[in-house]
Order: sequence, then structure tokens, then C-alpha cells
Amino acid sequence: METIVRFGVSIEPELLDQFDVIIKKKGYTNRSEALRDLIRKNIVHEETTNPEAEGLGTLTMVYDHHTGSLTKRLLEIQHDHHQEILTTTHIHIDHHHCLEVLVLKGKTKSIQTLADRIKALKGIKHGELVLTSSSL
Amino acid sequence: METIVRFGVSIEPELLDQFDVIIKKKGYTNRSEALRDLIRKNIVHEETTNPEAEGLGTLTMVYDHHTGSLTKRLLEIQHDHHQEILTTTHIHIDHHHCLEVLVLKGKTKSIQTLADRIKALKGIKHGELVLTSSSL
Amino acid sequence: METIVRFGVSIEPELLDQFDVIIKKKGYTNRSEALRDLIRKNIVHEETTNPEAEGLGTLTMVYDHHTGSLTKRLLEIQHDHHQEILTTTHIHIDHHHCLEVLVLKGKTKSIQTLADRIKALKGIKHGELVLTSSSL
Amino acid sequence: METIVRFGVSIEPELLDQFDVIIKKKGYTNRSEALRDLIRKNIVHEETTNPEAEGLGTLTMVYDHHTGSLTKRLLEIQHDHHQEILTTTHIHIDHHHCLEVLVLKGKTKSIQTLADRIKALKGIKHGELVLTSSSL
Repeated sequence: METIVRFGVSIEPELLDQFDVIIKKKGYTNRSEALRDLIRKNIVHEETTNPEAEGLGTLTMVYDHHTGSLTKRLLEIQHDHHQEILTTTHIHIDHHHCLEVLVLKGKTKSIQTLADRIKALKGIKHGELVLTSSSL
Repeated sequence: METIVRFGVSIEPELLDQFDVIIKKKGYTNRSEALRDLIRKNIVHEETTNPEAEGLGTLTMVYDHHTGSLTKRLLEIQHDHHQEILTTTHIHIDHHHCLEVLVLKGKTKSIQTLADRIKALKGIKHGELVLTSSSL
Repeated sequence: METIVRFGVSIEPELLDQFDVIIKKKGYTNRSEALRDLIRKNIVHEETTNPEAEGLGTLTMVYDHHTGSLTKRLLEIQHDHHQEILTTTHIHIDHHHCLEVLVLKGKTKSIQTLADRIKALKGIKHGELVLTSSSL
Repeated sequence: METIVRFGVSIEPELLDQFDVIIKKKGYTNRSEALRDLIRKNIVHEETTNPEAEGLGTLTMVYDHHTGSLTKRLLEIQHDHHQEILTTTHIHIDHHHCLEVLVLKGKTKSIQTLADRIKALKGIKHGELVLTSSSL
């Protein structure tokens, strides 16, 4: 069974009203859940700016699979880093474009380096790394 | 065959030197490719701040699958939005934690709303949306 | 006298511990204050993504005052927008570089347009806009 | 006299067209200037993520000057850091609110610590740090 503690927050009523409008708009049914989300986001931000922390990540990339030897280079790099790549999802967007998502695990700095290396390849049109954590 | 045009950029030599250091560090083999990446990032940023633009996205989320009716709620919401969800990838991180990635397609504002709705669910510990585009 | 309300937050003890480590590191003496900061940041983020909202901003820019007619152009633009510019602070960083901060007031979209126009001037080496609010 | 070098960029014509639309919208009169801005932004981003780099910063904050001993605490902290604070600009926004901008100089990590310390004070309603550089 999960343990839960409870603590009190003091706040100006006007500020609380503004926050309640936002959390309703975002679809929260519960103020505690909205606050826990802010707290967890804060923790993830702290962790993922520490290059030595163990973490998780996803790299989203859009590329044109017709570009020279791109698919070959992508496979090579991914095999070099097979220990950090948990899985790959590939979507055929249109005749030219692919969207691929890599799920990554390892030290923040290794995940970052791998993402940089892939984003630098000719033919990768957009790449964006999300860093997250399972210690929440 | 792909058409390529060429244009000239005037720049202070000290600035170019600093840029060359960065692109080498990032693993680029080619200055044009590094510049095209900056240009494409700029275009994606403009597009994805337009709520009416058609785009792509990935939602990365970490959650505890033991949390109440979370998995049931997730399935319901995803079916409500089946036209915008191209695929789902699920990783079992540890006994408690799952990492799930949804690949999304649709208007920026619809993708944003769907992501907000899921992030607001109790049990979703961290959610991060990446917006991208295939018009690059 | 300022009114204060108090509400309770339910949270997993492990999550609260991680948050307490961060707020201590950041120098907070008080958990409520740290949470109010997260809430206010959230409100500011919502407001400043609404182009029609009235807000405040500061534009930080670094430039070389020797660049062609830059200082003349800057003065012209600033006078065109005198109603939105509350004040200007200028620092002589070194022989070449100036750092200037404009404090801006108006609709988010007008502040954004003014900042874009200035950042696009030849000689402005770096410009960064912060949007904030006084409705907190 | 300033030296300028020129180099060529290869790019797909569709991508260049999209970029030209954006730079026109942003008010650039010149493609080279728009590209130099992207390059400089990239350099500033690299520098300001290095905690040991010497840099410049501005801290924008909104606060209620009626809050307890806030103005006294602000003065104390600022005097403790007088070597890093080049100047302070203060605007009376309304009866309650002040907007204050500090211009900071020093190592990135010292600027960051000072900003964290100030943002953690009770009564500071919103604080946002911009890091920049004069080595551009």
C-alpha cells in the first residue's frame, strides 16, 4: 500500500483563484495532483541538468529516408549505443518522411551525446530530446 | 533528384571560429548541415506556436501502472483520440514504472489539448510534449 | 492587511523529500514559499502565451555601438514605441560592447513585436525577452 | 576596420523559402544577419550552460514592496554581491508592485546562485534570469 503524507500551504486567495482557473482548463480534477505535477517537473528539471545522473530519455526525430546513406548511418550509431537504446518506434509519415522515436536509458551526459550525434547527421530534419526520470 | 541552391553568408571571422568549435563538438562534419539544422529548428518553432498548423508530436510520459484506474483511463482517452494517435510504445522500466510514448498527428492545438488531458491524470508522474513537423 | 488562506496537499513522502532537498539548495526557508513560486511561474507562463494579455517585459540586448547606424536606428524604434517602453538602462561593458535593458509594458503581442524588430537590427548580437506580469 | 569573411551554404530551395518568410516577418532586411543571429544564439546557449564561463546576466523580478522585510533583505543580498551587480533599475508598476532589473557580471554559476537566492525570498513574485555574453 502506498503511503501518503499531507502538508499545508499558505497562499493569497487571489493567487489560488488564478491557479484554480488554470488547473481546471488543463483538466485536473484535483489541486493536489496539479501541485504534485509542478513538484515532479521541478525535480526532473534538477535531475536532468546533472550530467552524471541516471535517467531516461526519448529522442524524437523526423528524417527523409531517401537521404544518401542516412538509414545505414543511423543503424550503425544505434548499434554502437545498443546498451542505451531500449527501443525504437518508426512511423512512415509520407512518401519521404519518417518519424522515429528512440527510448534511451543511461547517464544524462551519454544520452545527450548520443542525441547530439544523431541530430548532426545529414538528413535528420528535426530532432528533439526529452529527458525524464523514473525516480519520481 | 533533389535540387540544392547555394547562397553566401557574410560573418565576422571570430564568430565563425566560435561556431566551428561548437559544430565540431556536436559531431557535425559539415557547416551547411549545422546551419540547415538551425534554420529548420527556427521553422519548427514558428510552426508549432501556431495553434492551427497541422503537425506531429510525441508525448513522453512516465507513470506507475499500479495507480488506481490509470491504465483504464489512459485507454479510454486514447480511444477518444484514436484519430490523432498514430502509435503507442510502452516500456516496462521497473516493477512500478512504465515509460510510454504516443506519436501524435493533427492540429497543434488538438495535440496540445490531448497532452494536457493525459498529463493531468493522477498517476502520470512526468509528461513532456515535443511538437515537430513534416513540412521541412 | 493581507489575507492568507491555507489548503492541504497530499503527496508521497519520497516525493516530498526530493522536493525538500531542492528547495533547501535553492535557498528557500519555507515550503509554502517554494510552492507559491511554482504556482506563480505557472500563472505567468499561461498569461504570457496569450497574445492579448496585458503584461510587462524586459528585453536584454548586447550590441556593438560602433556598428553603422545602429544607435540611431535604436533611438528611432524606441521613440516609435515610447508608450510601451517604460525605461532603458545602458551599461558600457567594454570598448565595443553595450548591454541595454528595456522595461516594456503592453499587450504580449506588442511587446513581442517590438522585441523582434530590435533583435533583427544589424549589430544587435544577442537579444532575449522576458515576459512577466503584475497580476500575481 | 571590421573584417568580414564569406562562406557558402547549400540548402534545399523549399527550406530557404520557408526561412525567408520567417525572417521577413521578424523584420530582418538581410539573410546573413538572420543567420548570424541564429549562430550567436547557439554560441550564447553553449557558453551559458558552462558554469565556469565568464558572462553577463539580467535578473528581472516583480515584487510587492509591502512584503515584510523584503526590501531590507534585497538590499543586504545585493550588497553581499556588489561585485557581481553592475546596476539596478527599479520601476514602480502600481501601488503594490515593483519591477526591478539587476545587471549581473561574473561566472555563470555565481550569477545563477545569486538569482536563485533572490528568487527564493518571500515576496518575490516572479523572477527570471537571462544569461548572455560579450564574447560575440
